This record gives sequence, C-alpha cells and structure tokens, in this order.
Amino acid sequence: MMEEKRYNEFLIEGRNAVLEAFRSGKTIDKLYILDGCKDGPIQSIVREAKKGDTIINFVDKERLERLSETGKHQGVIAQAAAYEYAEVEDILKLAEEKGEAPFLILLDGIEDPHNLGAMIRTANLVGAHGVIIPKHRAVGLTATVAKTSAGALNYTPVAKVTNLTQTMEDLKKRGIWFVCAAMDGDVMYRTNLTGPIGLVIGNEGSGVSRLVREHCDFTASIPMKGDIDSLNASVAMGVLSYEILRQRMGGK
Amino acid sequence: MMEEKRYNEFLIEGRNAVLEAFRSGKTIDKLYILDGCKDGPIQSIVREAKKGDTIINFVDKERLERLSETGKHQGVIAQAAAYEYAEVEDILKLAEEKGEAPFLILLDGIEDPHNLGAMIRTANLVGAHGVIIPKHRAVGLTATVAKTSAGALNYTPVAKVTNLTQTMEDLKKRGIWFVCAAMDGDVMYRTNLTGPIGLVIGNEGSGVSRLVREHCDFTASIPMKGDIDSLNASVAMGVLSYEILRQRMGGK
Repeated sequence: MMEEKRYNEFLIEGRNAVLEAFRSGKTIDKLYILDGCKDGPIQSIVREAKKGDTIINFVDKERLERLSETGKHQGVIAQAAAYEYAEVEDILKLAEEKGEAPFLILLDGIEDPHNLGAMIRTANLVGAHGVIIPKHRAVGLTATVAKTSAGALNYTPVAKVTNLTQTMEDLKKRGIWFVCAAMDGDVMYRTNLTGPIGLVIGNEGSGVSRLVREHCDFTASIPMKGDIDSLNASVAMGVLSYEILRQRMGGK
Repeated sequence: MMEEKRYNEFLIEGRNAVLEAFRSGKTIDKLYILDGCKDGPIQSIVREAKKGDTIINFVDKERLERLSETGKHQGVIAQAAAYEYAEVEDILKLAEEKGEAPFLILLDGIEDPHNLGAMIRTANLVGAHGVIIPKHRAVGLTATVAKTSAGALNYTPVAKVTNLTQTMEDLKKRGIWFVCAAMDGDVMYRTNLTGPIGLVIGNEGSGVSRLVREHCDFTASIPMKGDIDSLNASVAMGVLSYEILRQRMGGK
C-alpha cells in the first residue's frame, strides 16, 4: 500500500563525508563510531551530532564492518534520512487539485519526534493538504518521525520554512485564515472553522509562541472539564483538526 | 496542584520479598539486580519479571547499595507502583455526585504504557468519570503510565476488571449504553452519543476484540480522509471522546 517515494534512508561513511553531511544540514538519525576513537575529527563529529537529535552509538570494529557498505568507514558511519521536503506551493497545489479549500497544519516548534510523527499521521487522515514546520528550534523529519507517521510521510507533504510568521503573512494574501489553539480562546464548537484555514499548534511545553500567536486571525480552545492542565500535544492537534473536518463536512 | 494521593512508588528489597511481590501480582516497574548474580532465586525473579513489563537493570554493587533503603538487598531491589485501583462502583458514584450521566472509557487491551497514560489524561480533561481496563493482556498502572498521564491518575479513577464483557453486561442493567470505535460504524457525528455512555477503545494493533464488540450497543467511526489506515490509538480515543463531550454540551 505504501509507496516509499518521499522517504528513504542511506549510509554515509568516513570522517570527511560524515562531517560534511552534518555541516550541510543533512538530517543524521544515527551515528556509529568505533569505540575508543577520540581523535580530533571524531570529536568534531560528536560535537555536531550533539547539536541535533542524532543518536550516537559507540560500537566495536566487527559491528562497524558489518554495517559498512563501502569498507572505508574510517571508524564512523552515519545513517541519514533522505526525505524530500515539499514547498508550501506544493501544498496549495494539492488542495487545488482536489478542488478543496486549503487546510494546512502549522507546527510551531514540536520537539518530540513521536508527537511530530503522530501529527503527520493525523494530518493525513483528517484530509489536511500539508504540514508546515519551522527550520529552527523544532525536530525535523527523522527516522523516528517517519516510523511514527505510519506511512503518512509518503503522502502528506511537509514543508520546512525559515520564518513561520513570514509564511503566514504570505498565505494570508492567498486568502488563508489562521487559527491557533489557546486555552483562553473561544470554544472550538462556537468558532467558524470552515473555508481556507491554517491550524497552528504550539510547542509541547510552552504552546504557541507570542509572535506566531499575534499573526493568527483567531483562537479556538478545546473544552477542559478535568483537573489537570492540558492534553498531550498530538491528542490536542487531533481533537482540533477533527473539529475543522466536522465543520467542513457540515456536521454530517 | 496535584495531590499525590492515589499514586506513589516504593522499594522492595531482598530475594523473598521481591519474588513474593511478583507472585502476589504487584506491579513492579523496575528491577535492579547485582550484575553477575545468577543463582536459582535470582533466575526465578528474572523469569517473573519477563512475564510483565518490568524493566530489568543489571547494576554494580555500589549502585545497589546507593539505592537500598534497608541495607539488606541480597542482590535485588524492585521498584513497585502503589496505585490504588478504584472499583467500578466508585466511578458511578463520581458521576452521581456531579449530577451527570455516567461517561466511562473502557480500554480493551491497550499494550503501550504511553498510550494508556495519554488516554487517562484525555479521560480526565474530557470529563469522563473513570476508566475501566481488563486484568489480562493489557498494561496496568506502571510508573510510565503515571508519568504520561500528567497527573490525571491522581484524579481519574481507574478500575481493573477480570471480565470486561461481564462488567459491560452489569453496567447495561444500570442503563449505560456502549459504543465502540469501528472503521465501518456510522460516522460519529451522525451517531447519538448523549446519555449514560461507555466508550470502548480497542488494542493498538488489532482493535476491539470480537467478543467485546458483540456486547456493544452500537458502533461509531471517525471519518478517514487520507491514504493510510488508522490514527494513533490515543489520538483516536481523544477524537471520539471529544465528540461525546460536544454532543453532551449540545454542540455549544
């Protein structure tokens, strides 16, 4: 059922190649380093790895040789994710092709790859045309995200933008309204969520950032009838996006 | 804000005490065993641990001594969860006290503690009066569940029953209707979900078991507009339970 078109994994071997991959901004999911190896280049690689969400495994020579495809690993092998990010334009085109008002999901700084994966999964099933994530201070499309998305990453385009608020302003000129989840917003059932819409979901801990929130056209809240503070981020995104779908379906 | 009334953790030390704890059905979250220790009693403990979702850590003597509260660990320390399970009757009483029609969540075989925790969190916020889980083939209230529930475990009663369908039949006599999530059910927006209700959510992989499904009064489905098969289990539970709340609030 799943075409592996947008996503696959490959290995990068050798010190220069791996260091270059990090420096060019490639997503490296896993790093295998020969146990005991501590020279300059290896230390630089480890430093780069620690900046991202790369998992570092110190392994013995035998394991490394087994992993190696080239036989020239020089003590280091990186497993990179090759995901083709979409452009925002591709997302709008998809909506147009389907003859539907655009329905976008903007994720303002999701940190947990399991949450990002679950949200892409929900975005696919709720009929959203794409997901927009920021380049900085957020998890990108790692192998964990791909796995947690349960295949959705192969269908739902994900665009990565440098400046989320700039993208929002550009999209507003194209007629899209932005709603953000907020505790003190109007209850979602009473908010008109039909038409071309972008749903903005904030960071797991701190919610939607002040700046992004100021660029939203309105806010909507999920009713909270309990004793604790907030829903799990991917559950909240699911509940809000399904309310948008309900209204799009005319409540039927 | 959170009273730690229903949930806390404690240590059990020594071979007999730990083995006894396992055999009496206590929830042991983590087990610390002296590295290299492989005698009969330790092997029995490891066997018991592997039956459940206990995490086994082989540690050195120093670590074990640091953990020990009694100084008499004999090479093994277990970390147990002391959660007070509620009775189904407590859940109904809670609904009565609030003057609300009962709203129950029945989880038919959830295996992932993160999912169970997220679902208890959602149950709390959606205003459900309690959660019912089966004794067998499902994760119980472990430390991971407590943590993922974000404090909800201290407020929302969770009852553990031997026979889920028997409990459903008993509750039907008290006027409660059961709805289960199913792909081929009526779309949830068109299903009347008001009144005394029990929402049944199935296992992450296999869904609601045939037997439990046969005891449900009706089925409801979440609209699926995408390319993949299903939502994450805790997202699906969130979407369905919030549809129940929407209908309870009269769509306001």
